[in-house]
Order: sequence, then structure tokens, then C-alpha cells
Amino acid sequence: MKVFRRALKIKVIVVVAKCEIFYEGRAASYAEPHTRLIIVKTDGTVLVHERDGREPLNWQPSNSIISITEEDGNVVIVSKRIRPPEVLKIVLHEIYALMITHLSKTKLRVLGTEEDMVRQVALNPSIIEEGATLVSREVSTPHGRIDLVLRSKNGYLIVTEFKRSSADIDAVYQLRRYVEYYSKFHVNVKGVLVAPSISPRAQALLKKWGFKFVKRSPPIK
Amino acid sequence: MKVFRRALKIKVIVVVAKCEIFYEGRAASYAEPHTRLIIVKTDGTVLVHERDGREPLNWQPSNSIISITEEDGNVVIVSKRIRPPEVLKIVLHEIYALMITHLSKTKLRVLGTEEDMVRQVALNPSIIEEGATLVSREVSTPHGRIDLVLRSKNGYLIVTEFKRSSADIDAVYQLRRYVEYYSKFHVNVKGVLVAPSISPRAQALLKKWGFKFVKRSPPIK
Repeated sequence: MKVFRRALKIKVIVVVAKCEIFYEGRAASYAEPHTRLIIVKTDGTVLVHERDGREPLNWQPSNSIISITEEDGNVVIVSKRIRPPEVLKIVLHEIYALMITHLSKTKLRVLGTEEDMVRQVALNPSIIEEGATLVSREVSTPHGRIDLVLRSKNGYLIVTEFKRSSADIDAVYQLRRYVEYYSKFHVNVKGVLVAPSISPRAQALLKKWGFKFVKRSPPIK
Repeated sequence: MKVFRRALKIKVIVVVAKCEIFYEGRAASYAEPHTRLIIVKTDGTVLVHERDGREPLNWQPSNSIISITEEDGNVVIVSKRIRPPEVLKIVLHEIYALMITHLSKTKLRVLGTEEDMVRQVALNPSIIEEGATLVSREVSTPHGRIDLVLRSKNGYLIVTEFKRSSADIDAVYQLRRYVEYYSKFHVNVKGVLVAPSISPRAQALLKKWGFKFVKRSPPIK
């Protein structure tokens, strides 16, 4: 009991227990004793999960008042809201596992698009190769649209292909089509694939054809 | 690794880990390595929870295809959907706790109202007292509406007060008003309080005034 109470508001309580659940608020419900996963968060949120599905079987929102008591020898978790009046009562008949754990509070970072990646490199072509300069963006060819064309400081043309997630062999084939297309007009063309990661097969193909991989993720918005 | 894989589809995996999360689907997001609670259900549902709030930080719906692999020495949970294309990738940098547990799959039972309780007793007044018969339902008095009036087999009038949840002293006072009201016309009146439970103070008051408590819950719909 003490260990539960001390954990409230500071740590997250995760319990697997055979439990019986009484809810009364805008509606009323009852769940017979069965094995469930109960999560009590630091802000008073309570979630009761079962085997399947995204939605909890029962839940109480944040700012609920949690109390943990004993009743007929069972640990009882009660979550109350005043407005609207709502009570969720969980009677733990048997506790199979108990975790009292610290959890983080972070925010998701929404990642930029492929276009955002291209824009960043266009503003600073040295990301691809020291001293490179911008030739053109979104260059249409009979084989597709090249994201970015640069020129290296010793006169090579650099054609690029950007992927916002892991690059696979399709991306390498795509890059090769662009390189072959430009090779008809220019003697020296380099191919560069830009992505946050690359599959082993794509990496091998890239190496075989003498192209370069630049590891780069979409910018965080 | 094996223990994880064997658990898939049969048991629920609950992990507390320092993890990094990559999501790409209709949008894209990234969550830096932090301590989170990850739940992988038998139907492929994935939930990632943090310290506060009802909503998971990341989630994948049921019927997602889960694979658990190793990457650079880290356990990696990948959840994929084909339509719409969506990938959630969780890289576990450090595992602090791991539970592989059976959980139940039940349904909430929606409980009936106070009216449903009254209706059941009206159909079978012996629930209150052996041989009792129905006199009247919803009897208006200057002191409020009596849920049910019965007559005992030896001629007593039985006035009742129903509560769908725990009865407190207000319920006992209410019952007393009805008993006193009827006592003006009838010599013998009994008071009965019907509820799933009663507070200790209400119980004491009930005893003091010679009323009876009948333990009864709202019917399950």
C-alpha cells in the first residue's frame, strides 16, 4: 500500500492484475474480475487495457483525484472527478506484476518533407561536396525529375536523388537513369543519393556504380 | 530477441525503455531517446505512453504487422500498415523493464438505472421481504416521490428508497421523511433502503431508526 501511495503524482504505476471495475458517471458500467493492465499516470490519468485494441476498456482523464486504499484485503484504486461527477473504482483481486517507473514527458517532432531536404541543400550545396555550387532545382528529364543539380568546384556535374526515409535499390536505379542521361551531354557526371539511411542492397549497388551516399534526415519543423 | 518474438500474437508485451521513435505515414515524426512505456497487443496494436495524458505519444492500430529485429545491438520494434502505408519504428536503446503477460478480452457491462432496479423489485416484491405484495410505484408525497410502496404479508406498509450506487445518510433521511409521512395514516410502516452498498454512517442511522437495508445492485443490461 505504502509503495503505491508514494508513487502517486511522481511516478507512473503499471499493474497487471485480476481486477473488477466499477464505473459510475454519465453512464455506469461493470467489468467482471479478469486480467488487465492498469496504468496510473502522474497527472491522475488512469487507463485500463485489455488484450486487443487501441482503446482502453476504462479510463479517467488527467486531473482525476486518485486514492489507493484497502478493502476486504484487496488493493483498491479509486479515481474521482468532481465535474462532471465520475468515479472509477478498480478492485485488485490478485496482482501479477507491478512496475513503478519514471517516464518521460516529451513532444513529437514533426519532420520536414523531401522538398525541405532539397531546399536546405540548395541553400548550402557544400553539404554534398565542399565547394559545390547550385546549377538547377527540379530538372525535368525524360527519365523523371532530378531533385537538384550541382557543379563541383573542379567542374563535375552532380546529379542528386533525395529520399526522406531509408533509400532502397529503386532509388539507386533512379539515380543511375539521371547519371546516364547527363552522361550523354557531359563527360563527367557524379551521382549522389541523399537519405537518412540506406538498405544494404542499395548500398552495394551504389558502390558498384561508383555513386556516393550522403546521410541526411529531413529537417525538424 | 526470441522471448519477444515468441510473445507476439499470443501475449501482450509491456516494455519500459529508453527509446527513439520514427514514424512515417500520412505525416512523419520523430521522438528523441527518452523513457517510455511501450505496449504491443496480440492484435498488432502498438501504444507508446509517456508520463501524462490519456493519449499515447505514438500508436499503431490493430492489424498492424509487427516485427522485432536487432539493429546495431538494439532491439527494434517495427509496426507496418500497408493501406494506408504507415511505419512506426521504435529503437530500444536501453530496456529497464519487460513484462510479457496474458491479458483478458472482455466486454464492459452497462449497468441499469435506478428505475431498472425498482422495476425488478416491483415484479418480485419478495426480494424485499418474503410474501410482500406491490401496492404502488412512484408515489408522490409532499416530501418527494417514493420509489415503491409494498405491503408485507402481515399487513405492514413498506416504503422504499432505491439508490443505484452507495447510499449515504441523505438517503436515510429521505426514507425517514416517507416513513413519517405514512405513519400519520397507518399505524405500521417499515422503511427499506435498497442499494448496492451503504456508508457506515448511513448504516448506523438506519439501525437507530429501525429501518432495513437490502443490498442490491442495478441489473446488468
